[in-house]
Amino acid sequence: MSKKSDAIQDLYPKWLRVKADRFQLSRLDPAETRGPDGRRLDRQAAETAFRENIACLQKLQYRLYAECKHGVLVVLQAMDAGGKDGVIRHVLGPLNPQGVLVFSYKKPTPRELAHDFLWRIHMHTPGHGMIVCFNRSHYEDVLVVRVHELAPKSVWKARYAHINNFERLLVDSGTVILKFLLIISKDEQKRRMQARLERPHKNWKFSEADLVERKCFDAYQEAYQAMLEKTSLPHAPWYVIPADNKWFRNYAVSMIMRETLERLDPRFPAPVEGLERIVVE
Amino acid sequence: MSKKSDAIQDLYPKWLRVKADRFQLSRLDPAETRGPDGRRLDRQAAETAFRENIACLQKLQYRLYAECKHGVLVVLQAMDAGGKDGVIRHVLGPLNPQGVLVFSYKKPTPRELAHDFLWRIHMHTPGHGMIVCFNRSHYEDVLVVRVHELAPKSVWKARYAHINNFERLLVDSGTVILKFLLIISKDEQKRRMQARLERPHKNWKFSEADLVERKCFDAYQEAYQAMLEKTSLPHAPWYVIPADNKWFRNYAVSMIMRETLERLDPRFPAPVEGLERIVVE
Repeated sequence: MSKKSDAIQDLYPKWLRVKADRFQLSRLDPAETRGPDGRRLDRQAAETAFRENIACLQKLQYRLYAECKHGVLVVLQAMDAGGKDGVIRHVLGPLNPQGVLVFSYKKPTPRELAHDFLWRIHMHTPGHGMIVCFNRSHYEDVLVVRVHELAPKSVWKARYAHINNFERLLVDSGTVILKFLLIISKDEQKRRMQARLERPHKNWKFSEADLVERKCFDAYQEAYQAMLEKTSLPHAPWYVIPADNKWFRNYAVSMIMRETLERLDPRFPAPVEGLERIVVE
Repeated sequence: MSKKSDAIQDLYPKWLRVKADRFQLSRLDPAETRGPDGRRLDRQAAETAFRENIACLQKLQYRLYAECKHGVLVVLQAMDAGGKDGVIRHVLGPLNPQGVLVFSYKKPTPRELAHDFLWRIHMHTPGHGMIVCFNRSHYEDVLVVRVHELAPKSVWKARYAHINNFERLLVDSGTVILKFLLIISKDEQKRRMQARLERPHKNWKFSEADLVERKCFDAYQEAYQAMLEKTSLPHAPWYVIPADNKWFRNYAVSMIMRETLERLDPRFPAPVEGLERIVVE
């Protein structure tokens, strides 16, 4: 690993971060609301802190963009109705769209399937100065593929190492990687899906396939556990976000992004000597 | 032209729209503040209307995304310091980033130059449901290229027709194209550039090349006039925005986007029969 990777791995805050060898997803309470200090947060305080986080992130993003030295990759994974769209809207929405790109990875196309599984991912990784968000990602290739046996075990098992190598490449070239797994309970998923079915304007978000996926809820928890154990590494850790409460979820993601970028501390490029003496004719 | 193009060309509002055969850029006042009804707008009223436009655009964007039938391409052209970044921040910034992509076209790379001039453009045109903004665009190939003679006249002259054909292809497949040329006066550009030089945090936006470009201010006005005459067509018209006043510029762009999308009138997909009777287990 390069010095750059070493420096980047010191950026990631500890709160909600997964240590690969001692994390049990099954023991997580999706309705958890304890903050970084271990005390229960109340909603109003969290919403106030969330707004402060966003204001900070807006300033940090401007400096990140101006400095043009690091990229930030935000990976979002969750079950259907888990809150991925909500995080994009509430946490990334207030940022300057010139510096943010969101890519949603759906079922691969025939052309994508004709390449290695990281091909369609690599082309959208962030350039310097940019924040890129993946709504689903290369991790689907060890999640849905594993749960539904879309590839032989020998194939998806090899992918954990491929992913780790690939993410190391990104970090070595200055990319900060923040991976968020949003966890909701089975009951909360049921409520949200039912609401989508009943509200005419939420209807379009529903697909019958979601019900099939829901039947595999427990299999997904197992696939998540394996993914966390194998791919939550110091240079690109996973954060598991209890997401039954949307206000807590938004607060937590914004907090972790803010702290990481504060430690990255992007700076405006140093003024060029004498620039202030130029007179525009 | 297909029926789709016919339908799309009826969407574009008239205010500030360029009729190719009777528009004289030299007669435009960049400090103009008259609204759609011909009366002078005051700043406060325009700012209130701007906020309403944004609220409408947010709702329209959601429906555009849900319907997934049309794409919207917003093209921004202007001199340096003309306000392109400002429009992106203020008008596109409040939209949901999941449905917006911004691409900034800079000096072409060797790889890009090894293709036709529309190659790097085509790959980023909006898919259904998306709003894509080009910060500079294929029009640079008839602007900077013309002004600095980066290609023989025979080459750039042929490009107007290529552009028109290309944009017709996009519109025929359901893309709405809104092209904005932001016009500032030479004095206003001077003020803004000087400010960039003097403010440490604006400094990084300045490049010595900008001063070279400024020397060609008048040549650019000529190139703009030719561009407007040749490429402001009913299916993909140009809007020329007087942009000395940022509040007027933001109001005007938001107003034109809002009216166009209101006429497009995207709808939520019709609820699937019986969906509301499904019970999530």
